[in-house]
Amino acid sequence: MSVVKLEECRERLRTELDNVVDFWLKYSHDNVHGGFFTCIGKDGKVYDELKYVWLQGRQVWMYCRLYRTMDRFHKPEILEAAKAGGAFLRKFARVPGTSSGQWKCAFCLTRDGKAVKIQRTIFSECFYIMAMDELSRVTGDEDMQLEAEEMMKQLIYWVQKDSSGLGRPQLPGDIPINSMAVPMMLLCLVQQLVEGRGQEVVQKYRELGNWCVQQILQHIQRNGTAILENVSPEGSELPGCLGRLQNPGHALEAGWFLLQFSAESGDEELQRTAIDKFVELPYQYGWDKEHGGLFYFLDVDGHCPTQLEWSMKLWWPHCEALIAILMAYSQTKRPELLERFSQVYEYTFSHFPDAKSGEWFGYLTQEGRVALDLKGGPFKGKNIIELDNCQDARAAEKPNYFNKMSDGTQVSVKQMGTVVLAAFDQLQLVQRRPDLVQVEKKTLH
Amino acid sequence: MSVVKLEECRERLRTELDNVVDFWLKYSHDNVHGGFFTCIGKDGKVYDELKYVWLQGRQVWMYCRLYRTMDRFHKPEILEAAKAGGAFLRKFARVPGTSSGQWKCAFCLTRDGKAVKIQRTIFSECFYIMAMDELSRVTGDEDMQLEAEEMMKQLIYWVQKDSSGLGRPQLPGDIPINSMAVPMMLLCLVQQLVEGRGQEVVQKYRELGNWCVQQILQHIQRNGTAILENVSPEGSELPGCLGRLQNPGHALEAGWFLLQFSAESGDEELQRTAIDKFVELPYQYGWDKEHGGLFYFLDVDGHCPTQLEWSMKLWWPHCEALIAILMAYSQTKRPELLERFSQVYEYTFSHFPDAKSGEWFGYLTQEGRVALDLKGGPFKGKNIIELDNCQDARAAEKPNYFNKMSDGTQVSVKQMGTVVLAAFDQLQLVQRRPDLVQVEKKTLH
Repeated sequence: MSVVKLEECRERLRTELDNVVDFWLKYSHDNVHGGFFTCIGKDGKVYDELKYVWLQGRQVWMYCRLYRTMDRFHKPEILEAAKAGGAFLRKFARVPGTSSGQWKCAFCLTRDGKAVKIQRTIFSECFYIMAMDELSRVTGDEDMQLEAEEMMKQLIYWVQKDSSGLGRPQLPGDIPINSMAVPMMLLCLVQQLVEGRGQEVVQKYRELGNWCVQQILQHIQRNGTAILENVSPEGSELPGCLGRLQNPGHALEAGWFLLQFSAESGDEELQRTAIDKFVELPYQYGWDKEHGGLFYFLDVDGHCPTQLEWSMKLWWPHCEALIAILMAYSQTKRPELLERFSQVYEYTFSHFPDAKSGEWFGYLTQEGRVALDLKGGPFKGKNIIELDNCQDARAAEKPNYFNKMSDGTQVSVKQMGTVVLAAFDQLQLVQRRPDLVQVEKKTLH
Repeated sequence: MSVVKLEECRERLRTELDNVVDFWLKYSHDNVHGGFFTCIGKDGKVYDELKYVWLQGRQVWMYCRLYRTMDRFHKPEILEAAKAGGAFLRKFARVPGTSSGQWKCAFCLTRDGKAVKIQRTIFSECFYIMAMDELSRVTGDEDMQLEAEEMMKQLIYWVQKDSSGLGRPQLPGDIPINSMAVPMMLLCLVQQLVEGRGQEVVQKYRELGNWCVQQILQHIQRNGTAILENVSPEGSELPGCLGRLQNPGHALEAGWFLLQFSAESGDEELQRTAIDKFVELPYQYGWDKEHGGLFYFLDVDGHCPTQLEWSMKLWWPHCEALIAILMAYSQTKRPELLERFSQVYEYTFSHFPDAKSGEWFGYLTQEGRVALDLKGGPFKGKNIIELDNCQDARAAEKPNYFNKMSDGTQVSVKQMGTVVLAAFDQLQLVQRRPDLVQVEKKTLH
């Protein structure tokens, strides 16, 4: 990978980000009832008016983040859109939980805000917290921050003390599980909540952050040869399909959360583990050697996964991979990582973006053909906009950005554009470090 | 389609049925804890020990049905397997519901019978009823019949009076829906419960049967040009993806339930409607003109469905299509129906059966490549064995079978082999009616 090539990547990422922000500003705002449409077809047409709370929360978060951290998005229209989305969320997303005194967030609302469905998990609440915390930062509204912290407190209670408030019946065969998504998402929230808040808040969440890291590390199984998506709370392998399930995109996502945590805490052993086990390993087993791209699900023993979509190529694992690999490279300068980045980059940018109508496709067949041509759906929202790694994106446009990285907070939101600012940040770094580029020129194609 | 070709089909179906019964007798029995393994890989290996109640119920039903209605399966080992499966179900499947005094059935059990998950729908209960009713017929155990009727009573209460016992929270945006699966499944159960029970039982369920038919007919929408999967309880179109969803396999399945009902009741108008709207129409819009096979889901306005698996080709819609088309042909003698049968037959038998290891694959890509090579999974069980249309299969091996059809009960259980005995029955008919075959020879290839 050459300097020219890296410059090309950077320019491409910048252009994608701008285009996708335009797409969502243009097509997703509901000026009648507030909030955002997220079911948007290939040409920008709204094909369903339901409002999915994960995606409402992410879009608020993303607008705030863009506004707060990148000069070229520091515009009143972005701020107003974020505030309007936040008002819709605050008004409608929270619903009484099954346990008295507890709040849940709906998973899905009608266009005018009536709850349609409540999931028996924590994720709608997670995105509510992200939205409120980030919104409090751009508005200075302390009530919102308080709301985010209150919801976080409840979420920790569900995860660590008593999950009955989530509404799942307690069944004798329904054994407790450490599912990767939970500590990963909590770690992400810890990083969101403490960012720049000072030592008191850092202290408040320190123990939880360490607990999340330990819970994530439990997913290293089979003598270090596999990351498994679900393990027992004690960290042992579970029987059956559930126990053998692998989700390479999740493992890579956890990888860069851990890398970021290790950079903040200066934990070199954690850094090594994150790169070897959560970046290199899932990239190796997750990559489709025949058709390219990362599988969605795999079975560690090579059985066929039972998920019908197991072999499909989704946008988000590729975004997570790009961020994780580039972050690993920027921390270690291992040239083979840059080669891997190049491979994922080529696949991603030759398959997912829609040159004709803008935005990205999200779902490809194993062979790489577009299987669903929607731009947003129940689980895929404001794409490139909802970048992951943009926490210090404004800083990233200034010199010496990388020195600031240890103060940054990164949030994974599984949006198509996850990659853009993250990779953008990492590329800026590489370009400003001629020594790294020299290595590439010598050792790579 | 020629006489020779029809004879070939019949032989093929008979052979498939025998092979698949062998496969499940060999690989699926749990001789330690009882019940059946249903997660079975391509070579017969159990890859997960969880026991899915839908499939336990179907397997019990199927063994009983084979034992009761087909001479060559009237063997002690089949009866014993059915009784053992039934004992497991009775011991473990029922769990206390959320409303006092009500029972739910678990969706999934551990190998030793502990409940893992309960769905907030009626379908586990449906398959429990099917199993118990059919088992009561081969064992003469009236308690089982009573159990089936008691569960049926509760199910009718949930569907027609108050669904709160299913455990779904009542939410203001969660509007009531007439989902095709519900009246279709209830009609199937009515036919199961009344079969050969005499006029008192027929009377008891007559009103419910008529109600089911009316509920199914509400799914004819857009001035008769489309079958939609979900409509309002009053029969009007619902907004968004939910309202536009089409499931061609379900429509075809409903089609032959209606055809059967119309044959029993002598309702010619219903017969015409069933053929035009529930057989011809879904076949037309559901068939993939490019790659062949029936789509899993479609959107009536041509938007991309949000189900990731929408374009996949599943075994069961093809089975439903074969039965529905052949039944429509046998009732009307329209030659074009036989041509359609031939098209679906060719696709089905050239794509789904696994010549190497037996049984059928269940899930293909849009292009027809095997996407999941498992033989059984959480939603796909004892395949060809769990035939649909075999109610009078033993009679079908005797002359004048077709005259008996109006007494028959048919049960759709969405198993791979749904087609086999159904098509077998229908083919026997066609072969015994030279006038029909003459028409074919004249008008068809």
